[in-house]
Amino acid sequence: MTEQTAKSGRRCLAVVLAAGLGSRMKSAQPKVLHALAGRSMLAHVLATLREADVSDIVVVVGPDQEGVAQEAAAMIPHATIAIQAERLGTAHAVLAARKSLEKGFDDLLVVFADTPLVSAETFIAMRAVLAETKAAALVLGFEAADPTGYGRLILEQGQLIAIREERDADPSERALTLCNGGLMALAGEQALGLLDRIGKANAQGEYYLTDIVALARDTGQEAEVLIVPEDEVMGVNDRVQLARAESLLQDRLREKAMRAGATLIDPASIFLSFDTQLDRDVIVEPHVVFGPGVTIGEGARIRAFSHLEEARVGAGAIIGPFARLRPGADLAEAVHIGNFVEIKATKVGAGAKINHLSYIGDASIGAKTNIGAGTITCNYDGFGKFKTEIGAGAFIGSQTALVAPVKVGDGAYVGTGSVITHDVPEDALAIARERQIDKPGWAKAFREKYRK
Amino acid sequence: MTEQTAKSGRRCLAVVLAAGLGSRMKSAQPKVLHALAGRSMLAHVLATLREADVSDIVVVVGPDQEGVAQEAAAMIPHATIAIQAERLGTAHAVLAARKSLEKGFDDLLVVFADTPLVSAETFIAMRAVLAETKAAALVLGFEAADPTGYGRLILEQGQLIAIREERDADPSERALTLCNGGLMALAGEQALGLLDRIGKANAQGEYYLTDIVALARDTGQEAEVLIVPEDEVMGVNDRVQLARAESLLQDRLREKAMRAGATLIDPASIFLSFDTQLDRDVIVEPHVVFGPGVTIGEGARIRAFSHLEEARVGAGAIIGPFARLRPGADLAEAVHIGNFVEIKATKVGAGAKINHLSYIGDASIGAKTNIGAGTITCNYDGFGKFKTEIGAGAFIGSQTALVAPVKVGDGAYVGTGSVITHDVPEDALAIARERQIDKPGWAKAFREKYRK
Amino acid sequence: MTEQTAKSGRRCLAVVLAAGLGSRMKSAQPKVLHALAGRSMLAHVLATLREADVSDIVVVVGPDQEGVAQEAAAMIPHATIAIQAERLGTAHAVLAARKSLEKGFDDLLVVFADTPLVSAETFIAMRAVLAETKAAALVLGFEAADPTGYGRLILEQGQLIAIREERDADPSERALTLCNGGLMALAGEQALGLLDRIGKANAQGEYYLTDIVALARDTGQEAEVLIVPEDEVMGVNDRVQLARAESLLQDRLREKAMRAGATLIDPASIFLSFDTQLDRDVIVEPHVVFGPGVTIGEGARIRAFSHLEEARVGAGAIIGPFARLRPGADLAEAVHIGNFVEIKATKVGAGAKINHLSYIGDASIGAKTNIGAGTITCNYDGFGKFKTEIGAGAFIGSQTALVAPVKVGDGAYVGTGSVITHDVPEDALAIARERQIDKPGWAKAFREKYRK
Repeated sequence: MTEQTAKSGRRCLAVVLAAGLGSRMKSAQPKVLHALAGRSMLAHVLATLREADVSDIVVVVGPDQEGVAQEAAAMIPHATIAIQAERLGTAHAVLAARKSLEKGFDDLLVVFADTPLVSAETFIAMRAVLAETKAAALVLGFEAADPTGYGRLILEQGQLIAIREERDADPSERALTLCNGGLMALAGEQALGLLDRIGKANAQGEYYLTDIVALARDTGQEAEVLIVPEDEVMGVNDRVQLARAESLLQDRLREKAMRAGATLIDPASIFLSFDTQLDRDVIVEPHVVFGPGVTIGEGARIRAFSHLEEARVGAGAIIGPFARLRPGADLAEAVHIGNFVEIKATKVGAGAKINHLSYIGDASIGAKTNIGAGTITCNYDGFGKFKTEIGAGAFIGSQTALVAPVKVGDGAYVGTGSVITHDVPEDALAIARERQIDKPGWAKAFREKYRK
Repeated sequence: MTEQTAKSGRRCLAVVLAAGLGSRMKSAQPKVLHALAGRSMLAHVLATLREADVSDIVVVVGPDQEGVAQEAAAMIPHATIAIQAERLGTAHAVLAARKSLEKGFDDLLVVFADTPLVSAETFIAMRAVLAETKAAALVLGFEAADPTGYGRLILEQGQLIAIREERDADPSERALTLCNGGLMALAGEQALGLLDRIGKANAQGEYYLTDIVALARDTGQEAEVLIVPEDEVMGVNDRVQLARAESLLQDRLREKAMRAGATLIDPASIFLSFDTQLDRDVIVEPHVVFGPGVTIGEGARIRAFSHLEEARVGAGAIIGPFARLRPGADLAEAVHIGNFVEIKATKVGAGAKINHLSYIGDASIGAKTNIGAGTITCNYDGFGKFKTEIGAGAFIGSQTALVAPVKVGDGAYVGTGSVITHDVPEDALAIARERQIDKPGWAKAFREKYRK
Repeated sequence: MTEQTAKSGRRCLAVVLAAGLGSRMKSAQPKVLHALAGRSMLAHVLATLREADVSDIVVVVGPDQEGVAQEAAAMIPHATIAIQAERLGTAHAVLAARKSLEKGFDDLLVVFADTPLVSAETFIAMRAVLAETKAAALVLGFEAADPTGYGRLILEQGQLIAIREERDADPSERALTLCNGGLMALAGEQALGLLDRIGKANAQGEYYLTDIVALARDTGQEAEVLIVPEDEVMGVNDRVQLARAESLLQDRLREKAMRAGATLIDPASIFLSFDTQLDRDVIVEPHVVFGPGVTIGEGARIRAFSHLEEARVGAGAIIGPFARLRPGADLAEAVHIGNFVEIKATKVGAGAKINHLSYIGDASIGAKTNIGAGTITCNYDGFGKFKTEIGAGAFIGSQTALVAPVKVGDGAYVGTGSVITHDVPEDALAIARERQIDKPGWAKAFREKYRK
């Protein structure tokens, strides 16, 4: 891991606890790999740390969680992976990162991979308050609408003196609503010393990070609280909470998009990904799903029932209703993609139209070309995938199959119902169909036979 | 009707009142046949009674409601149908079941077919409290957020002494928020005697079941209240309330599915039926509709904008986006069904793929077969429906029509754009299309003609 | 502008302020042209005024807002357009309509084009209260859940004595929750005189309409308040508020549709337009979008994921799932339109079926005709659009292209996979396809070649 210096000038190490079993998820997949807005909870937390200029990151995973380690490495290549061999409590988990802790740093952030909604601003504020107050520890707190089940933060003259688990709280403490949000910032100098002094003399026989507050005070140091909204520190332990976190995150993404100048006609029915980019005056109709990697240019309209993933839509384009843009769909200005149309790995030139019931994959379409209803690029022969290249100003008749690899030249015309198997020269007509034969009275006779 | 004994050892008769006109629904259909989560309100109530081990059921219908009687019989074949010839009040409606009442039983439940959200646990609890307290009557009550319009439950030392309709309540009684939920349990021994003593000396000249509380107390017997959440006893009288009941029921179904280990990415946009079965680690993307009779295997993913009815999806399959599975779609493990694809009455073998713009109906598809874009099984000739059988490992080229009845053998290959009218031997190629002809310069000349 | 007399017998002029820049919308489009439920905010306000029998309307637009003037003229052809050359406050904007004001009238309504949810009943009530109380001015007020930022209405003995902007309010005034909704009714006789006396001796140097209350009282006249729900007077200043207004309006439209006898299974996922007409017993499944101009006949069912615009659906028809009806789709009774089907500018006869993967545009389809899966009307040759006429009782085989202009006679039959280029006589069979050829062993050899 490259040791970098944060913009604040203070070096910060974040220990990301990701080893939890998450058995209440009832899943074969580790909890922190479950996704929100198109990426895993772990990825969200790592991205937020990066946004907060935390450059030294250790991800603590269980011994059986290769997938978690891979996800962390994919997101932050220089992140260190530490294995927590046994699950003996939060302090024990932090100490799995001992090697990194020993390197020395100014601040230590302890964060949870299953608490994905904490903002970068909060990480920055935690560090700022810690630096300012010279406290040994800072705990993130929240005012709970219903504090039942949470640890309470016990304050005296504004100082945090203890974190009391509900089972240990007396009635007056239970009446407190200021609760422990779990995340902590620790002063780097004292952190390892304090962590090493945490014992396991409790009912569960585990090492609790929350004990650090009392330990700090025992040695004459102070502990602070930073209060954030309850939603920000919600933990995800089951799929009901996962859905609630998704909903909170979507609301954030939607509001951000609207404030930037996009119209979401019915925001609650529009599903965004963490990285969806909507330019000014984009209009998104109800019932649209944006997978990751989508960029929409100014003034484009995404009509109802459209589904987009890893696609670029140019300014002024009209997509849908019922359009699907798959990875690699790259549409220039003023392109029209209509209903029941699928576009994959295809560059479409300005002003081209693909309006009805078509599958265009592994292709390129020139500007102002018109693709008729029911056109299919046959890009797969059961073994390989091949390209279809259509020039500018071409006209592909309806119900046409283009058997790749094949090229249709600029300005060429393909007759309705043709199977195009070899290249069409520019400005030529290509046609491949049988002539129509009529059999008078046949239908009447057919019906009469049936009705007998 | 077979007389059965409930698991409690006590015999129970439920009288289901279903004769209401429901004029506020403004519908040609009887109110209790309006549906929630894929089945009628009446069916919900009958299913809940069955779940609560109530085996003797009388459904009281109006003289003009053959459809209601049919729905009841379809749901509970041994249910008795009683006709309420005139609509003279709730007690009168219960007495329409006099023949069944005279048979003798331990408990009588009076339930309403337009109050569809009562749980089986509540029915069981009603009977248990009645048995335990040896009361003559038990009334279901709820704390109303706004009691306006409801009958108030008047208690004295925990005993129910009267149900006061709002118009008869004095100001102190109007201030009460404990309201009458309508449903009752009556001790079997006294029920008929009490019911027969209910009079109609009131403004409307109707026989009110609520009078039974006062009558019971007049004879030295007691009445109890069981309090349940307000939502559980909501009645449906118009379509706004129908939509609200649907919403409450959907929330229940969604939470149950998530707690069992399915991810519903955006629960509010996922519509479930009463019997939807989602295995562990099923992921359902936003905007999916499950009609009745759907089962999804472990780890399958139902992508956005999919619509499923009476279909089975195997483990690890990927469905959609924009897929429609109609009744009889039976998909094995790891099948892929892509966008704008409709599957009806078709068995699809493991690993087969039907990814784009196809209609496959009345067919069977072998394992690992690939169905190209725009494939259509022509299963209908205007009169009869015929089968298409495609073997394993076959490859059907794009834009192909398979005119049923027809068989394509294992490993066979059908050329793009073919109309297949007779059986294709295994490992053969079948092709049916005209060769491509090119006319150089035609398109240019065509354009010039137009532009003149 | 034609001077008309409202039903009340009192002549009323409405001045619609539409000149605001709306910079918080971050849009190239003027704010009041942003749409709600299928039409612009301006159009909503103008339609409500018309509904309230206000016949004399002046729309005040900015000098740079030709589009706003056009929208106003399209909605109310006899409306007067007044240009506010500079933006010097609300009173200044009203006086931009001086010419109309000088014509004389009984009541003056001052309304805002960015406050689109005010009801016609409110406009009528404003005028009624003004007439009854003989006040010089009536201000629309609302009880704010959070009054921060709003002007407070200062009352004395039920009379409005001042409108206090928040910055000028003392603490006791800030505690008031009755706020200024912006809209006003003014007595015609005094209006112009009072307006002309409004000065600009304030921090911003602007002419504020709210000053009229104090001016009226200075001359011994009274001012009244009419209180309406907060939602009704919400203003739209950014896209978050636009989405909220849309949501409130949708809820109104949905409730109205349900009360009129339509079932909306999941109202929140059904998007209506201002003019959507649903007859009795129409059932709308989840996830349906109605654009403007849609009428659905009694008992029709609109299945999930359907999209309709300017279309008529006859009684008992079944549409969708995944159907798209575009402008000019005109479907008779009991028509079935199935999945992935697009209908445009086409009259479809009673009982006809178009069930799968088809595009039917610029066509007519006779009664009881069956259109097979994958049928496409080729209505466009790159230059002109042409008609397809199909008679009654016809059968169009699957995967067929009909090259317009073309006619298929009553009772005719078109073979699967045909491209129909000339008229088909009634009761005839037309077919246009190549015969099937089988090449034994070809597929096996092909696979072996690839696997090498």
